[in-house]
Amino acid sequence: MADEPEMTTEDRRERIEVLVDDHNFAVASEVFRALHPADQSDVLADLDHEAKQALLAALTPEEAGHVIEQLEPTEAAELYENVGAAELAQVLDAVTPDVAADVLKQLPMGLSQEALEAMLESEEVAPLLAYSDDTAGGIMTPEVLSVGEDMTAAAALDVLRLNEAQVEDAGAIFVVGDGDRLTGALRVVRLALARQNAWVRDIMTTDIISVPAEMDQEECARLIERYDLAELPVVDEAGRLIGVILAEDAADVAEEEATEDMYRIAGLGDERLRGALSASVRSRFPWLAVNLLTTFLAALVISFFESTIVKVVALAVFLPVVAGQGGIAGTQTLTLAVRSMALGELSGRRGRRLLVREVTLGLLHGLLLGIAVGIVAFVWKGNFFLGLVLGIAMLGNMVIAGVMGAGAPLLLRRLGLDPAVAAAVVVTTITDVVGFLLFLGLAAALVNLLV
Amino acid sequence: MADEPEMTTEDRRERIEVLVDDHNFAVASEVFRALHPADQSDVLADLDHEAKQALLAALTPEEAGHVIEQLEPTEAAELYENVGAAELAQVLDAVTPDVAADVLKQLPMGLSQEALEAMLESEEVAPLLAYSDDTAGGIMTPEVLSVGEDMTAAAALDVLRLNEAQVEDAGAIFVVGDGDRLTGALRVVRLALARQNAWVRDIMTTDIISVPAEMDQEECARLIERYDLAELPVVDEAGRLIGVILAEDAADVAEEEATEDMYRIAGLGDERLRGALSASVRSRFPWLAVNLLTTFLAALVISFFESTIVKVVALAVFLPVVAGQGGIAGTQTLTLAVRSMALGELSGRRGRRLLVREVTLGLLHGLLLGIAVGIVAFVWKGNFFLGLVLGIAMLGNMVIAGVMGAGAPLLLRRLGLDPAVAAAVVVTTITDVVGFLLFLGLAAALVNLLV
Repeated sequence: MADEPEMTTEDRRERIEVLVDDHNFAVASEVFRALHPADQSDVLADLDHEAKQALLAALTPEEAGHVIEQLEPTEAAELYENVGAAELAQVLDAVTPDVAADVLKQLPMGLSQEALEAMLESEEVAPLLAYSDDTAGGIMTPEVLSVGEDMTAAAALDVLRLNEAQVEDAGAIFVVGDGDRLTGALRVVRLALARQNAWVRDIMTTDIISVPAEMDQEECARLIERYDLAELPVVDEAGRLIGVILAEDAADVAEEEATEDMYRIAGLGDERLRGALSASVRSRFPWLAVNLLTTFLAALVISFFESTIVKVVALAVFLPVVAGQGGIAGTQTLTLAVRSMALGELSGRRGRRLLVREVTLGLLHGLLLGIAVGIVAFVWKGNFFLGLVLGIAMLGNMVIAGVMGAGAPLLLRRLGLDPAVAAAVVVTTITDVVGFLLFLGLAAALVNLLV
Repeated sequence: MADEPEMTTEDRRERIEVLVDDHNFAVASEVFRALHPADQSDVLADLDHEAKQALLAALTPEEAGHVIEQLEPTEAAELYENVGAAELAQVLDAVTPDVAADVLKQLPMGLSQEALEAMLESEEVAPLLAYSDDTAGGIMTPEVLSVGEDMTAAAALDVLRLNEAQVEDAGAIFVVGDGDRLTGALRVVRLALARQNAWVRDIMTTDIISVPAEMDQEECARLIERYDLAELPVVDEAGRLIGVILAEDAADVAEEEATEDMYRIAGLGDERLRGALSASVRSRFPWLAVNLLTTFLAALVISFFESTIVKVVALAVFLPVVAGQGGIAGTQTLTLAVRSMALGELSGRRGRRLLVREVTLGLLHGLLLGIAVGIVAFVWKGNFFLGLVLGIAMLGNMVIAGVMGAGAPLLLRRLGLDPAVAAAVVVTTITDVVGFLLFLGLAAALVNLLV
């Protein structure tokens, strides 16, 4: 039997893997269609291209649509780029217009154009192609149900009845006034309990937040989170309701942004776990190459002091101590700053406060660590001045780490750039270079006391 | 005038700052109460303790409750720890039971006990104190409205009517059967449109997902996100409905977890932007101290080769090149692995695949970078074998970076520990030590070819 009702999700997944290995796609797709679309997309991710297409081909356009909703637009586009425009159009008609638009944007122009023309919902999808991906217009769904403020509760219920499938789980619907301008929201509970002849105007809420279509997606996600909204309406210049951003889409945005920040700090591009190996190289190699250049900068600094190192070889021993501590401290501050900015906690004059605070912490940590390393170096190598030089270099480097860790992202933000690209690479380089200069420079000046 | 209707949020915030600076708390609190609670908590964060308490004291318990809902439990506890138990109880009665429980857990035992006894809602709050913070029981709200499956639609509407305030924005309510066991959910839209004498049983949905009270909060957040749920019901061992986790709380959990992972990778504790300086030292100094120990390990490795470095001082110059590249590459892999685990994308055998993949990438990057640094070192210092030694050390170190970056978090997870604590500190140390051993060890073996 292909599928027994008591099979768990995990059982089904294993079953599909076995069946696919046997190239038994007919039975595999039967088991596959019993899974939740979120699990289906997960199973697909682990299969090769041929198996993916075989399983998807067995689904109805509606079923395939549910899977598409769960995939990244680039993944969906890959799966459908070799399929006819007519078939693609059927599948895209089954997904929400914002998802359809995202997939179309990823496809070759010709196919994209042809599929759009063949779609029944092309009128709803076409305008969305104009908005850029990371704006309110790019993540909103234009399928938004609204009622007029001069309707009665009974009439509003009739509107709901005619559009039941669309408002399934909705807690509220929007209210528009003259010229389709957004004027309020109506809670479904309130509507259900209202008298039949009550006016929508009298039972709606008017303190609602809306955003223009051009607003940055991160801003939208932050509004939804900050004010705990289930839906955020999007309006055009005239205040007309043109779409709605769902809280679930905002949660995806917040998660994406967190991932992006983490990856930028670590010097990763927008790499995916399951992408091609060549994509990973493209994502990481640029940073590795940049870092190589910057470590050569540090190497250059050391080479200036070769004659000093020949006299006092213990200096070479302590190079990683100076560099390592600065790098870690700088990354701590940088991470705190970048994440706080992303969470909207570092507005206006809080930036200056952070800088002051981080420099103070650098001084404090530098004193503690400087004394510690100074003592260790003194005891180990038996030279007081070696300990002194190392301690001072440590102190100086910790202060620089605070200045750079906080200052670099603040400066980048002011310049309108992404603060996360002040990646560990940059901060580490500067702490390395300054640390070596301080340590070896002082040592060279005091070289007679060190030998 | 204290407040004009056309003032923006930003105007009000500035106004409050000015008034507080003048110690004019009476007028400041008037402007303050016109703000949204989310903005109120933001304003409070920038004020000193005295001003905070003055503004809060001017609010009614209900208004203060809205502010508390927006604060971290620790922040709320700080504000109220010097206030009488009676006053505290009034405020906590105005917040949801899960928030009240979180705040009580942060207060000194005596005050906490006294306030709980004085609360009207103590019966709802007390059981929540038993659940640990990071489980479904710890983040759920026990105020969940349910209807019986053997009610009619008319009776269900009556239940809604009696509890309208509680279900304001709800899109669905839960349905229970015999012995209060959770059996389904009823969409409010569906209910609003149903015939008065329809049975709840016939119009409810039965394919709902629920979790036990002990489930980890991260798991819950992932379920909500994966299946796009608005609410996730929590049940006890007997399957009885005991509470509900709201999607907005799950979004907070996801955000917290992302922050936590980023901070752990960077070697930060659970530091807040606005905490005391001493808290920041406590959060970061342990990592700095651990890192100091580990860099001394690297220093020790170098010290074994002092005699070689004296002969070939160029070796000292290239130390940061070897160490720096390994550290960056290891952190790239580590970040990818930790984030993918957090997003639930690295289950089962995908871990092994990641390890293989990362080692392959390490080989690839190591070859490219090894050849590059080899050529640069050869051209710069005019010694072919120096280039060869540096190139081989680079290749080896990049492979180690892949092994450690992927292997360390996978191993930690298998041991039931947090994979993010395989922080950059650990990975960097191992790449440093192995890199220096390879580079200087090879150099020592070939020292006659290098001078």
